[in-house]
Amino acid sequence: MRVDGTHFRSLWWSAEEDVLEIIDQRWLPHEFRVVQVRTMQDFADAIYQMRVRGAPLIGATAAYGMALAMAQDPSDGNMDGAWAFLEETRPTAINLRWALDRCRAALRPLPEGERAAVALALAHEIADEDVEINRRIGENGLALIREIAAQKPAGEPVRLLTHCNAGWLATVDWGTATSPMYHAHDAGIPLHVWVDETRPRNQGALTAWELGKHGVPHTYITDNAGGHLMQHGMVDMVITGTDRTTRRGDVCNKIGTYLKALAARDNGVPFYVALPSPTIDWSVRDGVAEIPIEEREAREVTHVQGTVAGGGIGTVQVTPDGTAGGNPAFDVTPNRLVTGLITERGVSAASEAGLAGLFPDFAQAAE
Amino acid sequence: MRVDGTHFRSLWWSAEEDVLEIIDQRWLPHEFRVVQVRTMQDFADAIYQMRVRGAPLIGATAAYGMALAMAQDPSDGNMDGAWAFLEETRPTAINLRWALDRCRAALRPLPEGERAAVALALAHEIADEDVEINRRIGENGLALIREIAAQKPAGEPVRLLTHCNAGWLATVDWGTATSPMYHAHDAGIPLHVWVDETRPRNQGALTAWELGKHGVPHTYITDNAGGHLMQHGMVDMVITGTDRTTRRGDVCNKIGTYLKALAARDNGVPFYVALPSPTIDWSVRDGVAEIPIEEREAREVTHVQGTVAGGGIGTVQVTPDGTAGGNPAFDVTPNRLVTGLITERGVSAASEAGLAGLFPDFAQAAE
Repeated sequence: MRVDGTHFRSLWWSAEEDVLEIIDQRWLPHEFRVVQVRTMQDFADAIYQMRVRGAPLIGATAAYGMALAMAQDPSDGNMDGAWAFLEETRPTAINLRWALDRCRAALRPLPEGERAAVALALAHEIADEDVEINRRIGENGLALIREIAAQKPAGEPVRLLTHCNAGWLATVDWGTATSPMYHAHDAGIPLHVWVDETRPRNQGALTAWELGKHGVPHTYITDNAGGHLMQHGMVDMVITGTDRTTRRGDVCNKIGTYLKALAARDNGVPFYVALPSPTIDWSVRDGVAEIPIEEREAREVTHVQGTVAGGGIGTVQVTPDGTAGGNPAFDVTPNRLVTGLITERGVSAASEAGLAGLFPDFAQAAE
Repeated sequence: MRVDGTHFRSLWWSAEEDVLEIIDQRWLPHEFRVVQVRTMQDFADAIYQMRVRGAPLIGATAAYGMALAMAQDPSDGNMDGAWAFLEETRPTAINLRWALDRCRAALRPLPEGERAAVALALAHEIADEDVEINRRIGENGLALIREIAAQKPAGEPVRLLTHCNAGWLATVDWGTATSPMYHAHDAGIPLHVWVDETRPRNQGALTAWELGKHGVPHTYITDNAGGHLMQHGMVDMVITGTDRTTRRGDVCNKIGTYLKALAARDNGVPFYVALPSPTIDWSVRDGVAEIPIEEREAREVTHVQGTVAGGGIGTVQVTPDGTAGGNPAFDVTPNRLVTGLITERGVSAASEAGLAGLFPDFAQAAE
């Protein structure tokens, strides 16, 4: 999408320097920094430290990591080592493993001498596919927003609520949850987006930054506010992303998503989840019981980063010294709370039958 | 309660200096500052700026404000003016109006010459009553915690979750939601308290500070985390406070309380609300429809205060420049989501019959 008039993806290959470049998202929304990812450690750090974040973008980044590994040493041993090294950086997002598995399956049969070039081409392909998938998610979600807009007086905005950043910064481009918003805005449908802050890492500030750069009206709210807004009829639709979706449609997404789904159900607000099919883990049915939830550092909870008066970026500690912090990074929203899943192939019910209907090829392959 | 070995209330009268002293809670949990409240503007600022906060403490503070007004000018006109001036500082907490009404009703029949002394005595009485009410809430809540503890293996802690600070800092002493915790801890029942951060003002840090000073084990979590913890059986009971309770038991409390009540219901976790009877607004039935919700400044949402490295208190801006912030300060939890109300007279169902059964005197007086 556009940043001050220039089109960016969240990562791109610098052919001149033969290296991956990324937007280092740790400094957003305050500073727009581009960095190069040069070593395997750089790749692991970029994913674990959340310089890149969001399930689809993590997957694409990991594919470039595998390409680097193949350029350094195309042996089977190094391939397996790189797979394991990258896979352990984040345990919850399934796209990471999906991308690594896809790379390894494609590379394994090849002679070592061909692997580096094929791995790089495959990383490009995964990145381009992600853009196209998200464009289609946007078209499919646009149809849902159009239906809501058609039921309102002309000119009255469709009020959406989103949690975390499932925006273009979380993908290679377009975003998942935001793609229907960008498509609707570009189609001239008036929108207003309630942006959940999404503590502890405040990815809502990334969403606010994105939406602001694209001109979509929005208001930043605390994670506590959405239930109240829904109680008072101020939300027409919720759209979130997901880091892993089970084959029956349970949704594992950023911590707090479940609470918004409960509030949506309690107030009759449609709750949609936008997802590219690589986010579906066909091997898992019961998300609450089966998906490992990443527990991150307490410091993310006890401290908050932002800009300080006079410029620059600083951190404040909000808790008393020595306070223990708990930091589960994701939660699972059971399929019973999800109105529908917006995918690149259309919108399905959050159920095994619904997903298998749209993706019979994947569903059967995973049996 | 105790701070580093010394017993404090959250406000007290300095007989030597003939002035009210308060703990300025804007600096907690980072600095423990005591300030004097000398003028009517000081009183309004103390309440609006949340130097004092929490429904019961606001009520007691307002009573001292009325005493100051009577010392300055005991006329009916000044009494009514002080009532209106103090009442408008916070629109949601009912104790504020309750305390002001009580003072005015007691003072109106008196000769002007007697009003100043009686008003001050009445403020002392309201403060002392609050302490006794909260002590009884603690005893009544302790019985509920004992029941849960009795069903667990010996030594396994009762896991409580609370939202915001309904602690001794929000009352004159003991707290409302925390009073059962302090009583249980003092009775030797092992506890662990999940403390919701409670954005935007992070009153969870006050709760963490209080619990830490009293030695109650606790973990600070984001407002997003509670649903996940309940899904995984890690919460035995929720206890929150309330700023206004309707006669049928709807609970208006700090924004985000409703989301935790939904999660508790979805996971079969008992959800209790601790309240002194002055928090009951007998004139209101439907909390969602009837209670005005204070909308506070966007800056509370876009900025976060804390300690900075090297010492001192600083503020960071978490959003991009120019981002609009929405800041509804309270939400309403419908009575259908509340397991019970812990009051000074016992525990009742969250219903008109339940409250009227415990408080037939007040319920009838309000008919």
